[in-house]
Amino acid sequence: MPSADSAYGELLDRARESATLGSCAAVLGWDERTFLPPGGSGLRGRQMALLARMCHEMATHPRVGELLQILEDSELNGTHAANLREWRRGYDRAVKLPSELVSELASVTSEAQSVWQEAKHKSDFALFRPWLEKIVLLKRREAECVGYVEDAYDALVDEFEPGATALELTRMLGGLSRDLAPLVAEIVAKQPSADESLWTQQYPLDVQEQICREVAKSVGFDFHRGRLDTTSHPFCTGIGPGDCRILTRYHVNKPFEAFFGTLHEAGHGLYEQGLLESEWATPCGMAASFGIHESQSRLWENQIGRSREFWSAWGPRFRSAFSAFRSTSDEEFWCLLNQVKPSLIRIDADEATYNLHIVLRFELELALMSGDVAAADLPGAWADKVRQYLGLPVPDDAHGCLQDIHWSFGGIGYFPSYTLGNLYAAQILEAAEKQIPALWDGVREGQLSVLTDWLRANIHVHGQRFQPAELIQRVTGTPPDPGAFLRYLRGKYLGVAG
Amino acid sequence: MPSADSAYGELLDRARESATLGSCAAVLGWDERTFLPPGGSGLRGRQMALLARMCHEMATHPRVGELLQILEDSELNGTHAANLREWRRGYDRAVKLPSELVSELASVTSEAQSVWQEAKHKSDFALFRPWLEKIVLLKRREAECVGYVEDAYDALVDEFEPGATALELTRMLGGLSRDLAPLVAEIVAKQPSADESLWTQQYPLDVQEQICREVAKSVGFDFHRGRLDTTSHPFCTGIGPGDCRILTRYHVNKPFEAFFGTLHEAGHGLYEQGLLESEWATPCGMAASFGIHESQSRLWENQIGRSREFWSAWGPRFRSAFSAFRSTSDEEFWCLLNQVKPSLIRIDADEATYNLHIVLRFELELALMSGDVAAADLPGAWADKVRQYLGLPVPDDAHGCLQDIHWSFGGIGYFPSYTLGNLYAAQILEAAEKQIPALWDGVREGQLSVLTDWLRANIHVHGQRFQPAELIQRVTGTPPDPGAFLRYLRGKYLGVAG
Repeated sequence: MPSADSAYGELLDRARESATLGSCAAVLGWDERTFLPPGGSGLRGRQMALLARMCHEMATHPRVGELLQILEDSELNGTHAANLREWRRGYDRAVKLPSELVSELASVTSEAQSVWQEAKHKSDFALFRPWLEKIVLLKRREAECVGYVEDAYDALVDEFEPGATALELTRMLGGLSRDLAPLVAEIVAKQPSADESLWTQQYPLDVQEQICREVAKSVGFDFHRGRLDTTSHPFCTGIGPGDCRILTRYHVNKPFEAFFGTLHEAGHGLYEQGLLESEWATPCGMAASFGIHESQSRLWENQIGRSREFWSAWGPRFRSAFSAFRSTSDEEFWCLLNQVKPSLIRIDADEATYNLHIVLRFELELALMSGDVAAADLPGAWADKVRQYLGLPVPDDAHGCLQDIHWSFGGIGYFPSYTLGNLYAAQILEAAEKQIPALWDGVREGQLSVLTDWLRANIHVHGQRFQPAELIQRVTGTPPDPGAFLRYLRGKYLGVAG
Repeated sequence: MPSADSAYGELLDRARESATLGSCAAVLGWDERTFLPPGGSGLRGRQMALLARMCHEMATHPRVGELLQILEDSELNGTHAANLREWRRGYDRAVKLPSELVSELASVTSEAQSVWQEAKHKSDFALFRPWLEKIVLLKRREAECVGYVEDAYDALVDEFEPGATALELTRMLGGLSRDLAPLVAEIVAKQPSADESLWTQQYPLDVQEQICREVAKSVGFDFHRGRLDTTSHPFCTGIGPGDCRILTRYHVNKPFEAFFGTLHEAGHGLYEQGLLESEWATPCGMAASFGIHESQSRLWENQIGRSREFWSAWGPRFRSAFSAFRSTSDEEFWCLLNQVKPSLIRIDADEATYNLHIVLRFELELALMSGDVAAADLPGAWADKVRQYLGLPVPDDAHGCLQDIHWSFGGIGYFPSYTLGNLYAAQILEAAEKQIPALWDGVREGQLSVLTDWLRANIHVHGQRFQPAELIQRVTGTPPDPGAFLRYLRGKYLGVAG
């Protein structure tokens, strides 16, 4: 029987091989969202299925179980203990999933993403419906295989936010939406109006792209170890050490769409680039959760990027870059960027109404999983929820249930991460403000590296050493809680001190 | 023991799985030459090594040997017999290569490509030298493992042109270069001069790109199942069914660089897109050889693309697209595009001197393999050969031995394919002219699909059903031979009838 040291070494070798193969799939996933020709989607589905099956075979190899057992019988601590804890969690989940289910999920969701893209383009839900049906059935099977105590949804959300449950999320998101409704109404009634005519002007794409590169660099995104490209659905993928890619989209009339999209994805990118390369392929070298990941992107996009201090630094750049902004003051920029207004598209939503978009998606995916809503009835159910939470009619599927890519890649259980990220971000900012006295002076000067370094030291380098709730507790001194986020909104929009 | 039918089916399944994994590596290879951030080259090396090792493990699985044996004991014919022949060839070669050598070659050549790129950029051979040394040693080991009768080089060139040998290539290329020397001198002395001042004008890149797309479409390249992108070293990669990608490069003063680069790569692309999808992953669904592949690209680039007839169709387009060409006549275009002049860069070379670039590379890679030239002495040896064959001094490594990517990816034995392609193309054109009476009338009208269809039916659909020399014999009625190519040059440049 090998010693604990050699067992750990063998497990590490296996983890690295598996992570290398997974990183190949990440390149193919990135390519699928950027450059794959339409005719290649069938092959891409087969490629993804094969890689997923092989990764799964590696992860469930009986030898992994033996090695975990040896390590559990010995005394590990620090990162080794944390890695063992997470390896065990992953192994126990993986061995419950049949190989053919893993492969089928990869193949179906790869093709479904192409279909979703077309369906969204044509605003035709009927095209996507059969694929959504398949995905819901497959995800129910996945949940049954993995097992759960209360709700099948728990088995899925756990992949995104370890420890989260439908019950707890229903409580937290329900409370948040109840608090948000009157707050949004009050903000809307009191806010100064912004000059909407600016959105009929032209903002040349090459200048937009240049500024996006500048802002990504200014927060510390390393272009030697990463890229920025164009896509229809912005995202960030950390392929592995030295290769992290962010994607944004450009609109000639809306220069802030790409700008804040980039800032958001750069926040994700900083997290990926801040993970310890020495721990690559182990849990301590991987992001703690999707919610923690989202806290990093939302912090840069909203708390920092939409602050008055940030626009002291960036107002002049925008005035010189675009003639339409020649006479826009810093305060007017702030106003433009902080208009609160219920709208149809999640990724264009302001930070106050954003979580209402999440609440409705969370409720709908719970209902899809339980069967309370059939895939065929999704457009109607979506419209009902949008009326209920946002008070708006849904004109078509592209502005309704086809707007997001998530379900097409099988990401049922993903959406709550966004709201968790918003709540975490507010808590993290309060902690950062206490620990970095000159934080806002730096932001005002365009000096953002102090905050980047702080996030790296307090969050990024830990990877999965702590579970998400524990990490938030350690960094902020309190468990996950909506209080800081509500204080942040009241302070920012209503001038009410925390 | 399984029946021949079920053995064939099982072999097919294995081939498809292996081809799917290989196609993942092809995506990563494409990405490496287009979008990989510099910091990601280490990871890319590990990814490529892992995929190569896994593909090799699949290819050498003992079960493959058993299945081949079963099929060899039964009666196959048609494509099944041809697939069996090539599967056997591939298996026998693969089992001779140790898995760790395959993996090391993939890893070293992946990183070496990044180093080569930097070395070329800085024109600094010293950077690349240690990598070239490693590659030469690894390729010698590969040759020793594979085995050969006459020359270690034979074991390598066989991968690119089945059946080719150092001895036969030395004879054929030696003869060709002896015939070319006086011919080039005669052409240079007699040719009309072209207006070189055109290469100081500006040709906007967006217009160039538009025209490149047009010409690729005009020859039949299917953009639904392919892409055209930008790179520093143009190439084409057939990833698999529905996904074939060509790359070209743009220069603001040289509109024909991208145009003919695209036409060349589109020729490769047509071949890949013309392979039978139903035979995908089997030899009969793969290109016959690198030489045959090159015949397809050179035929479109030179025989068609640089003909007077072609410029009847494209002259007007260039005159309207670029103001610098406003008063350039079709005949002047022909003159511009057919200047014969010894030069330093292979891919910019005219079709008469081009093969001299190949002869010198062939001689140098033979010498690297035999040890007659050490990697450290390559720049000097290169300069000597360039003086001997092209009469020019080499100013720096970027214009010398660092100009081509091939050795960095381990492609020793690749270069002769270019000349074989030129010879085949001339033979194929003579056959096409006989069989398609209206060929040149069509080209004059910009109607190219007749030739595309003819190439598809006579060459593409066969894949590896016939070995290269047999395919050329079947299509042209004669074995591979430089005669047609020399007739073509004499006819075109000296007005001497064949």
